[in-house]
Amino acid sequence: MTAPPPLARLLIVGVGLIGGSLARALRRAGFAGEIIGCGRSLTHLERAVELGVIDQATTDLAAAAAEADGIVLCVPVLAIEAVLRELAPHLRHDAIITDVGSTKGSVVAAARAVFGTLPANFVPGHPIAGTERNGVEASFAELFDGRRVILTPEPETGGAALERVRELWQACGADVVEMSAEHHDQVLAETSHLPHVLAYTLVDNLARKAERREIFRYAAGGFRDFTRIASSDPAMWRDICLANRAALGEALRDFRADLDRIITAVEQGDESTLIDRFSRAKTARDRFTREEP
Amino acid sequence: MTAPPPLARLLIVGVGLIGGSLARALRRAGFAGEIIGCGRSLTHLERAVELGVIDQATTDLAAAAAEADGIVLCVPVLAIEAVLRELAPHLRHDAIITDVGSTKGSVVAAARAVFGTLPANFVPGHPIAGTERNGVEASFAELFDGRRVILTPEPETGGAALERVRELWQACGADVVEMSAEHHDQVLAETSHLPHVLAYTLVDNLARKAERREIFRYAAGGFRDFTRIASSDPAMWRDICLANRAALGEALRDFRADLDRIITAVEQGDESTLIDRFSRAKTARDRFTREEP
Repeated sequence: MTAPPPLARLLIVGVGLIGGSLARALRRAGFAGEIIGCGRSLTHLERAVELGVIDQATTDLAAAAAEADGIVLCVPVLAIEAVLRELAPHLRHDAIITDVGSTKGSVVAAARAVFGTLPANFVPGHPIAGTERNGVEASFAELFDGRRVILTPEPETGGAALERVRELWQACGADVVEMSAEHHDQVLAETSHLPHVLAYTLVDNLARKAERREIFRYAAGGFRDFTRIASSDPAMWRDICLANRAALGEALRDFRADLDRIITAVEQGDESTLIDRFSRAKTARDRFTREEP
Repeated sequence: MTAPPPLARLLIVGVGLIGGSLARALRRAGFAGEIIGCGRSLTHLERAVELGVIDQATTDLAAAAAEADGIVLCVPVLAIEAVLRELAPHLRHDAIITDVGSTKGSVVAAARAVFGTLPANFVPGHPIAGTERNGVEASFAELFDGRRVILTPEPETGGAALERVRELWQACGADVVEMSAEHHDQVLAETSHLPHVLAYTLVDNLARKAERREIFRYAAGGFRDFTRIASSDPAMWRDICLANRAALGEALRDFRADLDRIITAVEQGDESTLIDRFSRAKTARDRFTREEP
């Protein structure tokens, strides 16, 4: 495992599942600097201190930013612009900044809106890890082990900052890859945002029926797994849908076209379309699970 | 736990995950009769004997039926009519028959087609249990513990036969409920058949894109859970879609109407629709998982 970057004072803005797990993972890797947690609720942050996740808690973002040589933004994607705007006047010129937002085009746009250009020390990032639980109480040091972290540097991004952020995530056990923000947003729309929207829509669709009939009582184990992601934080997912609406809208329409063909096949009793598509799906899914850890 | 019914010779037609698990669960409950497995592949059945799942294996359905006082059909739903037709001339007049098919209207229709009327000793049933794995090797005695088994007796169904089949499943640890075949098919279309079709369609949709780009590489744990049911047996699910096409078609169209509203909300950046629906879904799903074992 890579050694963590030699930062003296790391500021984590938003100490929830991801921010808390990042702090724990860095400690596990022997990170020697101080870890400061910043957020809006002091009670919540003090709990993070009690749990040993962070060293210090503050709600004063400006003061904390002025002292940090590393900053990780772990706030909802649509809050990033406001946080950057508050940070900007106080930033040390050598501070490395990154984020963990689930969409990257919107984060790059937010940084450009605040700074005029993307700062050389700002490295947009996204750890592909999480659970349907939220909050620092749910955080754990192993969350990023073997998981991918996607960094989406822009032409303005400095090589040294990119290297620091890469070390940060590698020290947490992650496998770091790079791609463009646009490619990231398209891939995640398909593999993450689309499934979440489908799961939410299905459960909501059934829940309205369940008011009349206790249909969930007859749901099996497969239903539980299928709908697990519908227990994710609604506000976070509303934000992701809004922040990535172009790519997600395209993924949704493409899915719907396939769904229409399946509905027709079911209604027409078209056996060969059903078996072909189900078989292709099973083959792809079995291959995917064999290849992945 | 209820004592198993006092059958001398139980014939299980189709010794796969469900049939094999039923045999194991009955043994666990102290079932004293003989368990005969019947199927098309003797090699496969002999493996079930080796594993201690069944006592005897045969491919001669007529001979096996002539000696059985209990018969459980664990074959795909669309195979039930052919199996009943083969059994019918050899059935003992006192033999209790049930099935485990995922659709019930089609099974009742098959029995009526073969016998002219639904025999008083035929009790249509459906254990709401399973995994995405298939075959006797995947079977286990605990599969039905705490799971619901739905029986769908018709007016012709005899009370004694119904009681025997109820005891059979209760002995396997299941919670037995009754409803009409029509209600069963509607509820299962919504809570099981619809999610399976969505999972297959999503994985197939993404797999075609994945041929060009390695998108599955960036899928997180949530995706694995969401798509688990897409690893289910394609032929079995094709049959279920065909056997329950009316109710499933209606569930699919109702889901698609909700999906259309969500697509519009995403594309128009309609925050309140997104948060309302995601929140309702999370509330329903959290309630469902709190109430269920």
